[in-house]
Order: sequence, then structure tokens, then C-alpha cells
Amino acid sequence: MKEKVTVVKAGGRVLDSETELQKLMQGVAAIPGKKILVHGGGIFITELCEKLGIETRMVDGRRITSQENMEVVLMACAGKLNKGLVAGLNKMGMQAVGLCGGDLNLIESVKRPVHPINFGMVGDVTKVNIKWLSFFMEQEVVPVISSISQSDQFELLNTNADTIAASVASALADKYDVTAYFYFDKPGVLRDANDDTSLISCLNVAEIEEMKAAKAIHAGMLPKLKNGLDCLRQGVSCVVLGDNLQERAGTELTLN
Amino acid sequence: MKEKVTVVKAGGRVLDSETELQKLMQGVAAIPGKKILVHGGGIFITELCEKLGIETRMVDGRRITSQENMEVVLMACAGKLNKGLVAGLNKMGMQAVGLCGGDLNLIESVKRPVHPINFGMVGDVTKVNIKWLSFFMEQEVVPVISSISQSDQFELLNTNADTIAASVASALADKYDVTAYFYFDKPGVLRDANDDTSLISCLNVAEIEEMKAAKAIHAGMLPKLKNGLDCLRQGVSCVVLGDNLQERAGTELTLN
Repeated sequence: MKEKVTVVKAGGRVLDSETELQKLMQGVAAIPGKKILVHGGGIFITELCEKLGIETRMVDGRRITSQENMEVVLMACAGKLNKGLVAGLNKMGMQAVGLCGGDLNLIESVKRPVHPINFGMVGDVTKVNIKWLSFFMEQEVVPVISSISQSDQFELLNTNADTIAASVASALADKYDVTAYFYFDKPGVLRDANDDTSLISCLNVAEIEEMKAAKAIHAGMLPKLKNGLDCLRQGVSCVVLGDNLQERAGTELTLN
Repeated sequence: MKEKVTVVKAGGRVLDSETELQKLMQGVAAIPGKKILVHGGGIFITELCEKLGIETRMVDGRRITSQENMEVVLMACAGKLNKGLVAGLNKMGMQAVGLCGGDLNLIESVKRPVHPINFGMVGDVTKVNIKWLSFFMEQEVVPVISSISQSDQFELLNTNADTIAASVASALADKYDVTAYFYFDKPGVLRDANDDTSLISCLNVAEIEEMKAAKAIHAGMLPKLKNGLDCLRQGVSCVVLGDNLQERAGTELTLN
């Protein structure tokens, strides 16, 4: 039987305040056994860009990562946020190590083609090297991974944190029995976005397609659902979306 | 016979531009065998403070690290600079991992007492845990360490990069034959600060004391000399100050 590993992804609002970060870290602490935390940049990137007067260009509603934006990602995400999470987890009695995709050549990517839209310093994951992740976990170390990958030209690239988490979870699925937990600011997928008690506890592919067709899914949920299903297709045992790491509760996704 | 390890410390001007950083990384690449790079924040911290309008308070000519300053240190030093060095070394065919003192509880410190001067978020190193550093080097990984330590209360603290380097070198000296190379923007200690050909190739404690008494040493050199001699007293085999990593040339310090 394979050993269990939990990959927690945290991004957006659950990184936006000290209170939220404490809640996240308590959740991570409560997970038994081997675990990995993947995080995005939250509000810190936007805030730092604003303070530095760096404009974030959008094309067709999608964000462009300029060289200047990328430096902010490195500072806010791989610097302040990552190291803060590491020290916070250490304080709770764990031993954490903060990594980005460049460290130990952990997460390889290709820079997104410049046509039709040049997204700038953005990477699409091609490979996750699990050797060091396995080794850290065997030594009871918790890897804390910021959502930055490294291209074949050794550029550090901004990469969607849901995708990084899904790629890490999927890469570990050969060796481990992996749960991917997409931790966010709602109890899970809701029938009514304004009613937290309308939680759907289980969703399969057909139901998701139906809901998408009926436009019954909040746009912000779509990348999480896509990445969650990708995980399952690549051998991850269990995918949950929610805000309750202690009880591993939320919406569980299934293929059938 | 103990295996050789080189600890390179880089700070100040040698981190201040892409050209300087390239030169540093080429120097590190040229070092045979096991090696560690320790770096400070260079001009990036000052620049980022200025851009963010964060004041750097000085008391008696010494810098105070406020909470805001510490966030800048994490962003500039542990984020942008550290991860840039890691990707740069990876590009040169090495495999690097970027760490601060909080990662893997690597560098323990105590927060400096608030009397007579409250320096804020500043730590004095109490212990370097070499287990992981040894392990990384055995796996041919180059640890790149930013000058941040972690207090017994798990606060991340600003710490002098020369001291971090000396502490790392000294902690490794039991197990390894350690060379500490303090890399800076001069060929070494000069008889005449304005004449790069006036290099002193070797200096012992007595000669340093004489030069200090005669005020013949540039103030900026004093912490490097102090930390260099501390290394030797704690079992480091060889201490060099200079700008030539390829030939390991510069001013070699000796006790006698």
C-alpha cells in the first residue's frame, strides 16, 4: 500500500491577512503524515505593485507578467510570503523548507509562446522533479512551494498556483497515495454562492459539465475544478475543495 | 583527511548589478568541489526601501531594522536576489537551493537586547545546523544562503552577512577542511586604498592590530577582518579576502 501524502494549495484571499495565514497554518499542522504546501501570492503582489507604481497590464481580461511584475512576484511570493509561512510552520513544531521552482530545479516549465498573446514571464509546467520532495518528506520536512517555475532557459516564471499544486500532486501520485486539497475562502462548491450552507459534498465530471452548461458555477471556481479533475486523471486518489483542512471537508471531486 | 568546502560570502557592491552578479556566479562556478554561497542584500534593500518610501532609521551611525525594513529584507534578499542567484547558478550547470536561516531551522539566533540601543529585528547567531548543508553538498547541491536568521521565538531577523558566513564556515570546520572567502570589490586588503596594486597578500593578527592602531585599515574592512579571524580561531583552515575566486587570490589571514 502506498503511503499517504497531502498537497495543500492556498491562494487568493486565504493568504491576505495574518489571521487568514494563521488559520491556514493551523490547518496544515492538523494534517497527519507527509504534506506539502503550495501557495500563490495573494494580495501581496497586487499591493506591492501598487506601492511601487508598477502597472499590471491586462489583455483580453488576462494578466501580463512583465519583467518588473516578475520581480514583484519573486519579492512578495518567494520572499516575504514563503519565508513567513516557513517560520510560522516551524513555530508550530514542524520543520519547513521554502522553495520555488528554481530551487533544486524543482519545477520545470516552458515560457508561454508569445502568439497570439504575449503573456510575458509566464510558464507552463512541463515536469516536477519529485526526488527532493520525497526526500524532504521522508525526513519529516514540510516543503512550502511558491508558484514560480523555471524555464529550460533557466528563467524564473510566474505560474498559476492551482496548476503548480496539481502538477506536484500528479507527479507524486506514482509513488504515493495523494490527496490534493484546494484550500480557499468557501466551504467548497456551493449551489448558491451567497449561502455557505448550500455546500455540494461530492461532484463528478458529468455534474460539473451540467453545472457549467447551466452557468451555475462561479467563474473563480473553474480553474480549481479543471486542475482538480486533471489531478484525478493523473492518478491522484482524492481531490477536495474547501476551507476545512482539519476535517478534510468540502466538495470532493470524482471522475465517475 | 577532511574533505574541502569553500564558503563564499558576497555582499555590498558585488551584488549591485547584473554584471557584478554574473562575475560572482562565474567565480562560484570555478570553485572545485563542495561550496556554499552566503549573500547579503546589496543595494536592492536600500533601493526598495526608497521606492516604498520606508525610512531607514540610524542610531549612533548604526542601522535600525524596523518591521517594515525586515519585510523589505525578506523581499529583496530572500526573494529577488536569492532566487536570482539560484536560477543563475542552475543555468551554469550547478544545482542550487536558496535558503534563509528559517528554512530547515538552518540558522538560529537571539534577537539583540533592546538596551542600550533597540536595533529592532536584528539577530545574533547562536547556532548553525549543518546536517542539511552537509547533505546538500554531498548531493552536489550548492546552498545559497541569504543573511537572515531565525530567533528562538521563530522570528526572521536581519543578520550581518559576514557573520552568517563566518558562522556557517566555523560550524562546518569540525567535519570539513573549510576555506572562507570574503568576496568584495577590491583585490584584498590594500596598503593604499586607492591603489589596487598595493595588495597585502598575507596578514596575521599582530599585523592587523598594528595597522588598526595606525588607522591604516579602511573602516569597511574591519568587520570582514574580525569575522575572518573568528573563523580561524574556530578551526576554519583558510580565510581569504579578495575579488578573485577563480585563483582564490587576495589577502590571506593567519593567526600567527
